[in-house]
Amino acid sequence: MANLTLRQAARSGNCYKVALTAALTGTKLDKVITYNTVEKETRTPSYLATINSNGKVPVLQIGENVFLPESNAAAYYLADGSDLIPTDRLQRAQMLQWMFFEQYTHEPAIARLRFMVGFKGLDNCTEEEKASVPGKRKAGGAALDVMEKHLSTRKFFVADKVTLADVALFGYTHVAHESGFFDLNDWPNVRDWCERVKGLPIYVPME
Amino acid sequence: MANLTLRQAARSGNCYKVALTAALTGTKLDKVITYNTVEKETRTPSYLATINSNGKVPVLQIGENVFLPESNAAAYYLADGSDLIPTDRLQRAQMLQWMFFEQYTHEPAIARLRFMVGFKGLDNCTEEEKASVPGKRKAGGAALDVMEKHLSTRKFFVADKVTLADVALFGYTHVAHESGFFDLNDWPNVRDWCERVKGLPIYVPME
Repeated sequence: MANLTLRQAARSGNCYKVALTAALTGTKLDKVITYNTVEKETRTPSYLATINSNGKVPVLQIGENVFLPESNAAAYYLADGSDLIPTDRLQRAQMLQWMFFEQYTHEPAIARLRFMVGFKGLDNCTEEEKASVPGKRKAGGAALDVMEKHLSTRKFFVADKVTLADVALFGYTHVAHESGFFDLNDWPNVRDWCERVKGLPIYVPME
Repeated sequence: MANLTLRQAARSGNCYKVALTAALTGTKLDKVITYNTVEKETRTPSYLATINSNGKVPVLQIGENVFLPESNAAAYYLADGSDLIPTDRLQRAQMLQWMFFEQYTHEPAIARLRFMVGFKGLDNCTEEEKASVPGKRKAGGAALDVMEKHLSTRKFFVADKVTLADVALFGYTHVAHESGFFDLNDWPNVRDWCERVKGLPIYVPME
């Protein structure tokens, strides 16, 4: 495989997903470059022109000239052909189901609250961000409810073994409490599933 | 393949993506069941218990007992093994990159504005929804800018032929004007790409 560079931000669950996928698949990341997103280092003209016109991390750089944004797409690239992606057609689609659930329903609530309240501080948030807090609290709780119900009869999200669905959902779930709003003891199946992920043989923690 | 039922809402771009994928792959949908989401028909106890605990459409029902939510996962299931999904590892990941961009960056701005302003009416929106309009206008324009730049050197999003990335992004892009905020003449590459999708041999319009 060509040289791999992970362009990331510290403590970002989206970036961590890619690093965790690399670890679980035994893929070496040749280089890691960390940006300060609060200082808008991923919004500079050169970053937007060359690395990601959408101004976000993570970006998985493959060789010199290929830049792959979107955490779940970068994770899929790394895991393609590995045990993390089911070979069964339905199971593969179910894995993607949970990965899209994560980006559409889970991340905008749970990860955004963690960023706004836990990192940036509510006092530094815009009026629009402040107005979004009650809705995001409700949406985040509802997302955890959906996960809790699904895990009532399963050890992992799909196929009863770890897949990219688990990696994607674990990224921000295991740090959901950092917003101050979610205590995983209220979702015991989710809490126990987090422990199962942490117990995987080649688990690496978020830096 | 088992009997396929599409559970959908009228004029939903997310549901249309699944129907368009079925058409483009020559897959027969045996049954289509339409819900009124404004009347909360996808939030009933029986819907939540059996069909989708996340309370959304589309859901692709496969046979009697398998329910697959998330538009892009359902489209992937239908298209798996077809020309709509590249066999090249990088191109497959790039296709997913645009599908996740669609769900995380594009849909929450462009599709939500269309729903709030074009369908529900701003007067019927909550204060939180009203407060979100300026941010969504900005985010929607930025998403179209990203697409415009990418399409400046390409006919389709990945691999220079139609893939699920195009299907996913077309769903809400071609009706973006229905919010009253976006005129695709301001994004001519995007406008021309929409025309290319509409010109595909087995294209079916949104109902």
